[in-house]
Formats: sequence, C-alpha cells, structure tokens
Amino acid sequence: MEGANPAWAVGPAATKLDGNRPRGDSYYHSWKVLNVPKYVYNFTEGNKDLKDLLGGKGANLGEMTSLGLPVPPGFTITTEACRYYMHHGYNPAELADQVSTAITQLEGQFNRQLGGDSEPLLVSVRSGAKFSMPGMMETVLNVGLNDKSVLGLAKFANDERFAWDSYRRLIQMFGKTVLGIEGDLFADALEAKKKAVGAASDVDLTAEDLKALVEDFKAIVLRETSAPFPQEPRAQVDAAIVAVFNSWNTERARIYRRRERISDELGTAVNVQSMVFGNLGPDSGTGVAFTRDPATGHPGAYGDYLPNAQGEDVVAGIRNTLSLDDMAKIDKVSYDELRRIMTTLENHYRDLCDIEFTVERGKLWMLQTRVGKRTAAAAFKIAIQLVDEGLINMDTALDRVTGAQLSNLMFPQFDAAAPKTLLTKAMAASPGAAVGQAVFDSPTAQAWAAQGHTVILVRRETNPDDLGGMIASAGILTARGGKTSHAAVVARGMGTTCVVGADALDVDPAARLFRVGDVTVVEGDLIAIDGTTGEVFLGNVPVVASPVFQYLDEGLDKALAAAGGGVREAVYQGEDRDPTLVISKGQGDGATAELIMAVHRILSHADAVRRLKVRANADNGEDAARARRLGAQGVGLCRTEHQFLGDRRKLIERLILAHNPAAREEALAALLPLQRQDFVELFTEMDGLHTTVRLIDPPLHEFLPDLTHLSVSIARREALGEDVTDAERELLAAVEKSHESNPMLGLRGVRLGLTVPGLFALQVRAIAEAAAQLIREGKDPKPEVMVPLIGSYVELDLVRDEAERIIREVSDREGVALDIPIGCMIELPRAAVTADEIARAAEFFSFGTNDLTQTTWGFSRDDVEGSFFSNYMELGVFQVSPFETIDTKGVGSLVAQAVKLGQSTRPEIGLGVCGEHGGDPESIHFFNAVGLQYVSCSPFRVPVARLEAGRAAVAVSEGASGTA
Amino acid sequence: MEGANPAWAVGPAATKLDGNRPRGDSYYHSWKVLNVPKYVYNFTEGNKDLKDLLGGKGANLGEMTSLGLPVPPGFTITTEACRYYMHHGYNPAELADQVSTAITQLEGQFNRQLGGDSEPLLVSVRSGAKFSMPGMMETVLNVGLNDKSVLGLAKFANDERFAWDSYRRLIQMFGKTVLGIEGDLFADALEAKKKAVGAASDVDLTAEDLKALVEDFKAIVLRETSAPFPQEPRAQVDAAIVAVFNSWNTERARIYRRRERISDELGTAVNVQSMVFGNLGPDSGTGVAFTRDPATGHPGAYGDYLPNAQGEDVVAGIRNTLSLDDMAKIDKVSYDELRRIMTTLENHYRDLCDIEFTVERGKLWMLQTRVGKRTAAAAFKIAIQLVDEGLINMDTALDRVTGAQLSNLMFPQFDAAAPKTLLTKAMAASPGAAVGQAVFDSPTAQAWAAQGHTVILVRRETNPDDLGGMIASAGILTARGGKTSHAAVVARGMGTTCVVGADALDVDPAARLFRVGDVTVVEGDLIAIDGTTGEVFLGNVPVVASPVFQYLDEGLDKALAAAGGGVREAVYQGEDRDPTLVISKGQGDGATAELIMAVHRILSHADAVRRLKVRANADNGEDAARARRLGAQGVGLCRTEHQFLGDRRKLIERLILAHNPAAREEALAALLPLQRQDFVELFTEMDGLHTTVRLIDPPLHEFLPDLTHLSVSIARREALGEDVTDAERELLAAVEKSHESNPMLGLRGVRLGLTVPGLFALQVRAIAEAAAQLIREGKDPKPEVMVPLIGSYVELDLVRDEAERIIREVSDREGVALDIPIGCMIELPRAAVTADEIARAAEFFSFGTNDLTQTTWGFSRDDVEGSFFSNYMELGVFQVSPFETIDTKGVGSLVAQAVKLGQSTRPEIGLGVCGEHGGDPESIHFFNAVGLQYVSCSPFRVPVARLEAGRAAVAVSEGASGTA
Repeated sequence: MEGANPAWAVGPAATKLDGNRPRGDSYYHSWKVLNVPKYVYNFTEGNKDLKDLLGGKGANLGEMTSLGLPVPPGFTITTEACRYYMHHGYNPAELADQVSTAITQLEGQFNRQLGGDSEPLLVSVRSGAKFSMPGMMETVLNVGLNDKSVLGLAKFANDERFAWDSYRRLIQMFGKTVLGIEGDLFADALEAKKKAVGAASDVDLTAEDLKALVEDFKAIVLRETSAPFPQEPRAQVDAAIVAVFNSWNTERARIYRRRERISDELGTAVNVQSMVFGNLGPDSGTGVAFTRDPATGHPGAYGDYLPNAQGEDVVAGIRNTLSLDDMAKIDKVSYDELRRIMTTLENHYRDLCDIEFTVERGKLWMLQTRVGKRTAAAAFKIAIQLVDEGLINMDTALDRVTGAQLSNLMFPQFDAAAPKTLLTKAMAASPGAAVGQAVFDSPTAQAWAAQGHTVILVRRETNPDDLGGMIASAGILTARGGKTSHAAVVARGMGTTCVVGADALDVDPAARLFRVGDVTVVEGDLIAIDGTTGEVFLGNVPVVASPVFQYLDEGLDKALAAAGGGVREAVYQGEDRDPTLVISKGQGDGATAELIMAVHRILSHADAVRRLKVRANADNGEDAARARRLGAQGVGLCRTEHQFLGDRRKLIERLILAHNPAAREEALAALLPLQRQDFVELFTEMDGLHTTVRLIDPPLHEFLPDLTHLSVSIARREALGEDVTDAERELLAAVEKSHESNPMLGLRGVRLGLTVPGLFALQVRAIAEAAAQLIREGKDPKPEVMVPLIGSYVELDLVRDEAERIIREVSDREGVALDIPIGCMIELPRAAVTADEIARAAEFFSFGTNDLTQTTWGFSRDDVEGSFFSNYMELGVFQVSPFETIDTKGVGSLVAQAVKLGQSTRPEIGLGVCGEHGGDPESIHFFNAVGLQYVSCSPFRVPVARLEAGRAAVAVSEGASGTA
Repeated sequence: MEGANPAWAVGPAATKLDGNRPRGDSYYHSWKVLNVPKYVYNFTEGNKDLKDLLGGKGANLGEMTSLGLPVPPGFTITTEACRYYMHHGYNPAELADQVSTAITQLEGQFNRQLGGDSEPLLVSVRSGAKFSMPGMMETVLNVGLNDKSVLGLAKFANDERFAWDSYRRLIQMFGKTVLGIEGDLFADALEAKKKAVGAASDVDLTAEDLKALVEDFKAIVLRETSAPFPQEPRAQVDAAIVAVFNSWNTERARIYRRRERISDELGTAVNVQSMVFGNLGPDSGTGVAFTRDPATGHPGAYGDYLPNAQGEDVVAGIRNTLSLDDMAKIDKVSYDELRRIMTTLENHYRDLCDIEFTVERGKLWMLQTRVGKRTAAAAFKIAIQLVDEGLINMDTALDRVTGAQLSNLMFPQFDAAAPKTLLTKAMAASPGAAVGQAVFDSPTAQAWAAQGHTVILVRRETNPDDLGGMIASAGILTARGGKTSHAAVVARGMGTTCVVGADALDVDPAARLFRVGDVTVVEGDLIAIDGTTGEVFLGNVPVVASPVFQYLDEGLDKALAAAGGGVREAVYQGEDRDPTLVISKGQGDGATAELIMAVHRILSHADAVRRLKVRANADNGEDAARARRLGAQGVGLCRTEHQFLGDRRKLIERLILAHNPAAREEALAALLPLQRQDFVELFTEMDGLHTTVRLIDPPLHEFLPDLTHLSVSIARREALGEDVTDAERELLAAVEKSHESNPMLGLRGVRLGLTVPGLFALQVRAIAEAAAQLIREGKDPKPEVMVPLIGSYVELDLVRDEAERIIREVSDREGVALDIPIGCMIELPRAAVTADEIARAAEFFSFGTNDLTQTTWGFSRDDVEGSFFSNYMELGVFQVSPFETIDTKGVGSLVAQAVKLGQSTRPEIGLGVCGEHGGDPESIHFFNAVGLQYVSCSPFRVPVARLEAGRAAVAVSEGASGTA
C-alpha cells in the first residue's frame, strides 16, 4: 500500500505537503476538473469555509490546525463520499485508496502503525455534518485496538488496566454501533463481571477482570454476528466509516433534521483522528468550554471538566462535572493554555466558540471547536458585546441574532410576586417559563401532548431516544447532567424551557413519580420550571410579560426603569453606540437592562437598514393599537368577516335567508352603521398609516349551523314527535341549499361579492363613510380596498367599477376628497400567472400565501395537517410544513412570477404579503429577495418581522453567511 | 364642412383616391405611425382581410367593390372607433370630421345631397362585427329622410306613397332603435291608422294615410323623448352610429357572443351605405342566396326572394319567400346577373358564399356577401366538392370542417323503421333528431330545461329575444320563416335540431298549445322533430345511430353498404381521390354515401397530417374495444377507482375498517385477483398499444356512505328506540373520522398511496401480473403506471421505488421481462412549476386539466358550475366554461411551463393530456401548439379529436385562417 502512487496524489496534492494550502473551493474544483474525485482531506488541507464538504467539525479541525493549535492529526472523509454511499449503497471506488494514503501519512507523522504492537496508532472515527446534530450520529473510539495492539498500548501507556479498558470499550462501542448488537448485552456482561468479582463500580475492575471481560465481549460478538470481532485495524476503520454514513439516516437523525430544517441530502463527513486519552490518570481529563456563557451571555470562560475521563462522558451528562475554575485548581498549566487558546479562537472566529478538549498527561489537545449555540438572550448580548469590543460591526451583530430568538425573548416569565412552592433549584439550561403536567417518558409526553395537554418531561437524564417526547413537551426537567448535557443542548436548540442537574429529585419512571424531600409528584401533577433561574415549583405559577416584550410594547424608558438599570458602560460606548440614549443607573444587576439595550440597539439597526416595511394583520382597533405599539407601519390585512361574528352573525343569517331584494337590503342596512363604526375605530388607531381592508372572504354558509348537526337535531326531534319550527326547517333548507362539497373551492371571496347584490357595496360604503367622517374630524385615514380570491382581471374590473362609483358618491355627498386605492389578493395560481392582466385593474397586490399554498399544492390546511402531514414530514416530502415556511420552489415561484408580471404592467404597483408566512423568518428573507414592499403579520410577530427584514437586508447587501 | 382639410386627409389618404389601395395592416399601421387614427374607410379602401378592423360585412363590401361588382357606395367606421366609444363613453374626437369627409365624397360620387330636397341621398347604417351575429345588432334604414327630403324622394322615385312609407319606416326604426321608444307605440299607431281608414293591410294605406301616420309617429317621438324627431340628416347619421355601437353591448348580443365564444372586446364596425330600394314596385325586390345548399351541401344556387320588399323582411322571416327559381321567372335578367356574380364570388372566395342582394327597378345591387354558414353534413360535402372541383386542396378542406360538425354528424337519427305519427313536414333547417316536451315561450323553455326536462321550443317565429329559450331547447320548431330565418340561422350555428316554416301548425302561445288539423298538442306533450327531413312527429320516436357513426364504428364498407351506394362520380375523382376505394353503386340517392365518403376522406387526411396521437379514456375492456374501433391509438387514462364500485365497494369498505395490518392485507388480497382480471381484459383489447393506468385517486371515504345521511338515519332510529348495530356505529365512526371539509383538497391520489400501506402496491402488482400473464400467452401488453396528484418529486420517487421493486419481483417470479414506464399526472400548479424536478422521476407526464383547472382557479367543478358559473358567463368573466375549453391564459400557461421544464430535465419525456379538454376541439389546438404528443378523451370523442388534431397540424403548418 505504501508503494501505491494513486492518480489522485499528483498535481495539487503535491503542493499541500509544502504547506501551500490552497483555498477550499478552487482546490476542490481543480480536482473535479481532473475527474478524479478527492474524497479525503488531511486536517492540514481543510479550513472553516469548507463546511459543505468537510462538515463543521472537519472544517474547524482544519482551521485550528492552520492556526497552529494543538490538534491531534487526522483526516476528513467528505460529505460527497457519504452522498455517493447513500445513493449507491456502497462507497466510491476511489475511497479505499485515498483512505490508505491518508492513514499512511498519519502513521508517518507519528512513526506509529495502526494496530501496531508497540506504541500503536489508535484513531477515533466521528461523524461531522455541515450543521451540528449533537448526539444524533455515531462515534467509535479506540479504533485500531486488537489482541496484539492492546499489549502495545499497555506498554506505551504504562498502564495495563487502561489498555484493556480501552479495548473493552472499543468492542462495546463497535459492537453496538457498527455491528448493531443490542447494547444491553454488553452492559449486562459488565454488570455480571462486577458482581462476580465484587466490584462496586467500573473503576474497581482490575486489568485481569477487564481482560476476561474482553473475552466475554468477543464471545458476544461472535454469537450475535456469527463472526469474530475484527482484528484487522483497517477493517475496523472501514466498518466504522460505513457505520457513520449509515447513522446519517437513522430515524432519530431524520427527526432531528426535520425539526432543525436540515436537508436529508447533505450527508455527513467522517473525521478519522489519532486518539489522545483523557483517562490516563489524574493528570489527564477531558472537557468542554464556551468562550462566553451560552446561557446568559456573560463574558468569561465557562465550561465543564471531568478528570480522568474520555470526552463522551461529559457530553452524555452521566457524571457531574467540575467547573473550569475547579480545573484551574487541579491543572493550572493546562487551564492557562486553554484560556489562551480560547481567546485566540474567539478573536479568530469573532464569536462565541464552543470547544472540546482533552488533557493527556498534562498535554492539552483541542478536539473540536465551532461557533457555539447560545440562548436567545445570550445571542443578543454577545452580539452587542462583540460590537462594543470592536470585533464585529452592527450589520454582523444583526446577522448573529434571529427572529426565533427574539420571539423566544418575548415569552412571558413567571410572576415574581406570585406565591410559589419551590421544590428545588437546579441548573438553568434553556430559558423560559413552563407550566405543565409532569410525565415520565417520551411516549407519554407525545400521547398526552397529542390530546392537547401541556406537559413537562421529567427524566433522570435524556438521550437521543427521548427526542420525540422532548419536542412534544413545554419544558424539560432532568435530575442529572450539566448545561452541556444532551437535555440542555437539545432544549436550547429548540427554544424549549429546560432545567437540568436537579439532583434533589428522586425520579422513579417505573412508578411514574418523583420525590423531593417529603413531596411526591405523580404523573399528571402540575409543575412549573423556570429555565432562566433553574427553579422548579409545585403547582401552577402565574406568568408575566417578559422585559423584552415590555420594551417592545411600552418603550425603552419604561422597560429600563422596570429592570432597575445597571447597564454596563460598555453597552453604550461601543462603536455603534446610540448617543441619544441616557440611562439612569439603578439598583438592578444590570443583566436585564443589558438585554433590553442589546435588543433595542439591534432592532433599531434592523429598522434602519431594512427595505421591507412591516404591517400587521388586525381586525379591530384593539389589535391595531397593539400592532402600532409593536412597530407596525400600517395594517396589511383587516379580515372583515371577523366583524360579523357574535351577535352580528344573526344579521348575516337574515341576509342569507332574505326572500326578496327588500329583505336583503334591510339586512344590509342594519349592518352598515356597525361596519362603519368598525372602520372608524380601526382607522383612528392607524391614523396616518395605510389600512388594507379585505372585503368579506368566506362562504356565507360559514355563518350558518353545520349541516350534519342541524339535520340530526331536527331528525331526532321529529322522530320523538317534538316540535320543529318552520324557522328551523327554513334554516335547514338554506343550509342544505348552500352546502358545498368543497367550500374552500366554492362560492367565496369575489365570487360572493359578484353574486350577492349589495354585500361588497355595503362594505365599500362603510369604508368610504368612515374615512370621510375622520377626514372631517381632521384625521388622516388611509384605507385601501382589497378584493379577495381574484382569478381573472374581469372580476376585479367589475368590483372596481362599483366601488369607485360608491366612493365617488360618498365623496360628493360628504364633500371630502377620498383617495382609496383598490387592489386584490393574489392567492390563486391563476391570479399569479395572469398578474399582468390583473395589474391593469389593481393598484396593489397582497399575496395571500395561505390560500396560494393550498391551491398550489392542492390541499387544504384543515384537512391535511392532521392527516398525512406528519407522515409526509417523516417521508421527507417536506422539510417543514409549507404553511409555516413558504415553499419557495413551488408557491414562491408563483409569487415571483406575479411580481414580475404585475410590475411589467404597472411598475409602481404596491406589493405585500398578508399570509401567515409574513411573520415567518425564513419566508421574510424570500419576500425581501423577491422584491415585495412589505410583509404583514400578526401583531405579536411584528418585532420578529422587523428584525428579520433587517437581517434580510444585511444578508442581501453583504452576503453575510449567518454563521451564528 | 366641405372646406375642411382635416389632418387625417393627408399622406396615405391621398394615394387611396388614385385607386392605389394599400393592403390592410400595413396601411393601417402607417396611420398609427402618424398618430392620426383613421376611423373611416371608404368601401374602395377595404378588402376581405381587414375583418378585424372593418368587420365581416365592411371587409366583404370592400372586397366586392374591388371585384367590380355592383355595390352601392359607402364607407365603414372601424371597430377601433367602437372600442374607443366603449371605453370612453364618447366617440373619438377625429371621428366627426372623418365621417363628414366620407359623406362629402359619397355626395360627390352620386351628385346627391344627404337630406337634399331633390334626389336626396339616403343611407343605411348597419352594424358589422368581425364575426357574424345575425339579428343581434341594430340597423337603421332610410337615414337622411326628413320633412324636406321626403318630397325629394317622392319626386325621384316618382312614388309619393313609397316616399312617405319610407319616412314612416325611418321614424319607426329610428324611434325604436336609436331613441329607445317602445316599439309597440308605433305598431299600435299603425294599427289604429289602418283601422281608421279601413285598410286590411299595410299596402292598403295611401300616401295621404302615411303622411298622417308620419305626423302621428313624430308626435310619439316628441311625447316620449321631449324632443322632436331630428330633421338634420347628419344628426340622424351620428345618432344611428352611436346606436349601433351601443347595440354591441345589449344583453342579447352578449348572450350570443358567449354562446359563440366571441370576445366582448372586439366591438363592431358600422357600415354607412347609400340606400337602394327593393320596394319600388314589382320590378324591385330583395333576397338572400347561397352558392350551394347550406343544409345539404348540394351544389347550385339556393335562396329566398321577396319581390317589392326591403331586405330586413327576408331575414326576419315574416313573409314566406319565393325560391330563386321563382325569381328567374319574374326577372330573368337580374337572376342571370345574380347567378353570374355568385359564380364569380364562389370562385373568388373558393367557398360557399352567402349573399344579400336588392333589385331596384331592374338593377341588381349586391348588399353583402360572406362565407356562408352551413350544416355539418354540408360542410363536409362542400369541402370535398371544392377539392374535386380543383378550387381547394385537402389541407384547406380539412380546415373547412370542425370537430363540432363531425360530432354533430355522429348524433343518432330517428329509426326509419319505427312506427311514427307524422304531424307535418316542413323545412329542414338544422339537422339532427330531437324528441322533447313542447313548450311555447323562452322563459318556459329555460325553466323546464333547468329542471332537467328535454324541451322543444315551438314558436310562430323566433326573434333575438328568444335566444335564451333556444339555447335551452333540444329542438326548435317554427310555423313561419325560411331556411334563412332567424330560427334557422341561429339553430344551425348552435348545432340544435330545427324545423322551420311549418305553416300547417296553428300555434297559440297564449293557450300554450298548437293545432295541426284535428290534433292538439299542449304544453308538455312529447313531440319529435327531424332536422334533416323537416318532419314533425307526435309522441316519442326511437332513434338509431347515424350513418357517420356507423362508418366510424364499423368501417367504410359496412356504412356504404347500409347507405345504398350512389356516390357521385366526382367524389372519388378529385385531385385528392383515394385510388384504393372502389364503391359499389347501389340504389340510394347517394347523399348519405357522399357524406360518408366526405367524412372518410377528410378524416383520413387528418390522420395522415396530424402530429398528435389520440388515445382514449377507458376503464374496462368494453370501453377500450369501442375506443379502438373509433381510432384510439391507446388508452391514455384508465381510472382504476371505477373498478372498485358495485359489489367491490364492500371490499374497499373492509379495507378502510381494517383494525390491524392482517385485516388490511386480507382485504387487499381479496382485491388482487379481481383487479388483475380488470387489467387482463383491458390489455387484451389494447394489445400492442399503450395503456396508461392511473393508480386510485379519490379519497377512500367516497366509497363510504354520506356522513349526514348516515348520521340522520342512526339518530332517527336511536330516537325511536330502534336497533342500531355495532357495525353501523363502527361505520359511522369511520365515516366521521375520514370526513373531510374539502375532500378535493384532502387525502387522495398519491397521498393515499403513501398513507394506506399496500394499496398502490396491490394495483402495481395486479398490473405487472396481468402483463406477465399476457406476455406468456404471446400477447403484447404495454401498460404504463400513472401516479395521480403529484405535488413534489419526492412523492413520485417514493412510489417509484416501491413500484419498481414489485415489478422486478413479478418479472423474476414469472420469468418474463416487464418494461412498465412510471409517470405521473400533472394536475396541481406545484407539479407544473416544479416539473423539472418531477421529470427526474417521471418517464411521462399526463396533464390532468380538470383538476389543474380546479386548483389553478381555486374552484371545484361540483360546487361552482351550478352556483355562480352562469352569472360569471353573464358578467363576461368567462367566454366559455374553463372546464369545457382550456383556459389558455391561466391553466394553459402552467401546462406550457410544465412542458418546458419537464423537457429541460428529460428531453424525451412522454407528454399527453387526459382531462376532458383532451376531446375539446379548441383545446386540442392548444395542446398541439404547446408540444404534447397525444390527447386522450372519451371513446366517443376520439373521431373528433383525430379531426381536430389534423386541423391543428394544418393550421400550424399553413397558418390557415379557418374561415369556414
């Protein structure tokens, strides 16, 4: 093998050994040109911009290597190799040779042989996808150990017990992960051995015990797979690589990706890295660290350290960890080195870094770094800290936070003044305030949640198998594990409230209860957890609005006053400081005020840079007022049908049952003053801002009773000989007559307006009269009339003719000039593809992406979300529900066509969106890119939309990569 | 006015007076370049290719003028002027001057003054749209008459009575048409005058009587309009022009256009022509003529003549007319001249011409010509006659007939052998055999038809107000009028069976009955009319298949034998004769055989030239066999859900109610042999031809009882204390569970296949096993698997994976090679816009234009056709239902996108359509243009589709205008 000079080792590959590292993409492409796919990259060849190809871990190992940091040597197998494997079911032909060459290089660098009998080279084989998927995929450590090299390792480490423990760990891990043997078989054998030799714990087992255990484990492998444990080290490597590839497509990995909106197509890279050992004695150890506190955003080193342990022990959260301060007491040299490297990394990445490291007999090794996940509050604070430290500018700060994080911060918190029964206080792992019924396993969490219960999942510790239950729960509480445990990492990622390490809890899943002191909480009991403080309460606890929400809703002054001041000087002395802000320092600890200031500065920057305006969907004065406080620049959708509910439903019923024009006109006349008053209230709140009023959209029979219900009720009473009135029979007849097989595709929207005489006219008259009244009162109402469900320009022409006539009439009568633009929803595919024609009659378009999604896909939200959607997510037809985030390829393509066609007819046409996608972060970026002028969303989403519109503008203008 | 030299009279206008007539469009455009719109064309400037601008009448008057035929001079006001008027509500500023100049020219040509007091110039003002709209719009004759010029006319005509009669006609027509005065007021005054002077009929009134009547009429005008009848001739002209413009938008005109699919946007031209008089005595007259018999296709002059009458009298069908043979006896000179001109015109137009003429004191004037409407049989026969006479080639012949006409000829006819009660025999005006209940007015016809009755409208004569009832009726029977009467022309246009001039009928609309001899037929009685023979029968008459259908279904030999032979020699000696045909001459009159031969030759030519293949939609062997006989080249759609009706419905019910996988698999296993047998039968009939099988499409709950019905039934029995079985309750629960608010947008198509395990698999297995069985029997089955309702390529990928596995399995087990392409429906907008992705997984696309229309427009056929569709047609949103003819602008745009995108991924991808549009003539032209490879339609539409596919190919390759 050493003599081989494979084709791929010529050309560019020669230069890399000179340290002349070519930059990622061009290098990669030069290989492509030669038609010799390069599937293996040495760490010296990688860099952080090659995440697509090398995965996050591999790319960052490359980056650290070139920064001169102490990284154990190794190489990365590309995601391209994984994709090849996924599509073909076998590895690309070139891979084996390339791996051989890379191993040979590794052996050369150390002058050690993989599986050699003295100082053997051992490697870890780890997954590493583009996006972090903590705990989702497989890792195999100690690869290279066999009956021969275990002796070499014992000699090298001068520790026979360590060598045999490493070997049994390999067989156990390899057996479970690579060979698919039930893990309990190994665990049971381990327990049996401990029992047999009277060992209290793993560490009490001697080298001889472990040697015997290795034989037991090998017997298990032989029995379960009908083949002996592979002694050939290279066979171990190859099998582990395939196991990692396969782990990309496990169910839990797919569930995670769906939740995180990661494409199944990406595949994972595989990192093969020489092993270093944190379990060689008290001068060894392993840990994880963050360059800032990922939960609160506080500056300073933060992490967990486990002496004499392998890395997986920390992440698994099985043993309680030491803090970094404790590590400093144990190993000051390694600690200082770690802090120096952390500073280097943060200055290099200009962001919070998440680090995994191992100390092997006093020598520090960096195993991984990446930009660290963080809580929402930390994201805002850290971004502003980095601005004030001069590391990034405001555009980058804006790019480092997300609408989802802002949304998270707007959640209410527990009422501090309310009486509470504190059960315990543990580690705050993911902020928020959650109240729910305690459940003790994942299936119960999912089942109860599906029935509409709000649940808190209580576990000793979580593992990837709990993912389904974690998603279904409002909060997660564990008795064990630190802030970097599985539960903590996953919960932060999902924005779910989480408290971990509550060791006061005695959790008994079998009995479905937990005990704290003399309190017993059984399944179904209400508990409350505070993910910001780590507190756990018994029973219900009332919640209050968040300080960030208070800031958004009531303004900076009130929010800062309530927070008690104490903002650090740095917050408002950075390069982008707002000199108009003068903050009175108060008595608070400053954390809340810092957060408010960070949100304020970033959101203000978003407002300054964004191109998209943000309007709100509001149907009445109250909603409009709230929306305006939250920053809405108008109302993009007032759904007038909501104004016909309650008492007024009777009037619509009268309209439907009207037997002649006179009766119909009477019903309409009764509605006019009510409807006019609705608009007076709305326009008053939106004084000076545009208010788009959509004429009535749903089928009229939605205001009538349900057919089956009414039929059964009447049939039953008839059968019993009870009275059925003529009015009821008449109502049933009307319900039967207007019943539609597919009301979504029936007589609604403009069709209704063109069919029921006087209906749209009533609404237009109410709008015009309300506007006239306010103008006479000296106000500045700016209504716009929006016609729903337009499919053809002819429909809009007809409505426009009548509307203009009525507006002229009101204008003449009231003696005020009325400028009321008329436009329409674009919510049917036909409207999109004939938008050039429709634009002749429309002064503006508003995309109704809910309906457009329904008709483009041909499914109705009501019918399908509860039926085949979960299956479709499972099958990978969707990454995310198209009702949540706009389907850019399908629905988005129609939006883009309509924009282009509409502007071709009327370049100055108004363009907005009022579907629920208007408040969805990812969709907002699409709407920005496609050239809309505004998005409109529910009032509570307005701040999120403002932020994301700003982010979209920054991303477009700077091509920011959004690494945060 | 004469001195005016308007801007438009310079440049190109100068050349026209030299007879240097520029060709239409370029001439028109040169005016546009000068920005001086030309709204008025002298007849010497027009030609037959300017129909868009000058309307059909104006263009043909221009054409005849340049052929040197005797056309009374005049000019045409363009459709552009009309469109301007429609959009602005007033005439373009330039029009008045241009009309003045044209009138001045006319006065110069005749040396007469409009409204002059000696030899006054009188003009007719007539509408003339691009497409003929017989009787739909207004005409005003004798314009230019006033108190002064009436004396001049009397002197010129040497007939005082004629002059005053003309004047009273002008006031009457102008009053009604231009001034909007109720026509009865004039009619009553006329009757009163006749009564007062004791006149039996109009002709008994003397000049003095008429003079007094004119005063009465003028008084009516003054009373009704508060203004005197306008004496200024130019004011009369201008008002008449506006009246014609306005008549474009009357309700009856819009109804007619909708029926005929003429755009409301076209507008009408107005022809102002110097009057000639057919009512100047016995040496005068007026008539209409066809160069061939428009009903039967027989060669030779054919027409109606009314001596001493104005033209409108003929068309109105009020007086019974003479034949042209009778005219020859009265006025041989004019007759000969007319025949000479008819020959000139037919040779010039190379088609059947429809002519209006007037003889004024022995001088023949041509008032109009156009390519004449004809019956379906005549269309085929005339086209072949013209081929055999060397006037046109087969491509043109093909272009001269339509699928609608062929469809018409496929109608059944009355059984000649059945006993019948003949009431009378009259003129066969529009062929076909209609049986229905007699009704006597248009509202009744519409009301009864709406209730599902088949009706025959019986009228003395029809007028444009009857149009609604005519459309609603299966047949039309009138007591008066000739083959060119309103009833005859309109019925032929609609393809409705019609018998006219049945003067044996004594129709009493008020009593709602008619009498023939001693038989009285009252409203609701069944009658039968034969539009081919003119026979009217009492009671029901059985019908038999048409000879053309027999030809199509059983072949040429059988059909000709049944027709009795007698084909004219010319039929098979033309330039395109088929030398392989040898027809035995029999005893028939040859008309039927001639028709069969004409259809055969034209359809054979269509088959030879068409690019589109024609498949059929067939769900079973019987349909497939019929389709194949009718020329289908495969099955484009087998709807497998139709195979689960009847007894098998129970099996689907079992499938739905299955509580566990075993029960489900049992239900599926029971279906497998049945489904396999379905395919064996189908593939056997289609041996050697492709058969596209669509996997089950509708929601499964369509196989269950209706929710409301079942709920009411159970509730009623519960209330009465009757037994309700557990099975019924279980069924109700299942129905409730699977109920969808919008089943069209629910769990159906591929969604069902991906949700119900084993369902699609069963169908694919049945297809594969059926194919394998037939291959082993030496047959050549060519199944294709089609997946419905694909929205994303992922769905198709998933189905394809499973289907390929099953096909491989069957292939391996049965030991036969199975090549079964897998493709999908494109019936969702998303499929259309992501067709590039879908084509990766699809070997073919079949456009499901029914569903695509539903989702593109966002309406479901079931819900909307009965609700707002008629209103939408009325309002002009549709010209025609988009379910009938494809909406090219909206739905068609998506089809075109999908074709382009699909081919970009897979250039050789199969492309067809299987929606109902596949059999619609207009839609077929679109599918041809957009590049599909086949259309699939119901078996009975196959011949129509073959013909239209041929016509589409000819139209594309030759740019044929389709004037017939």
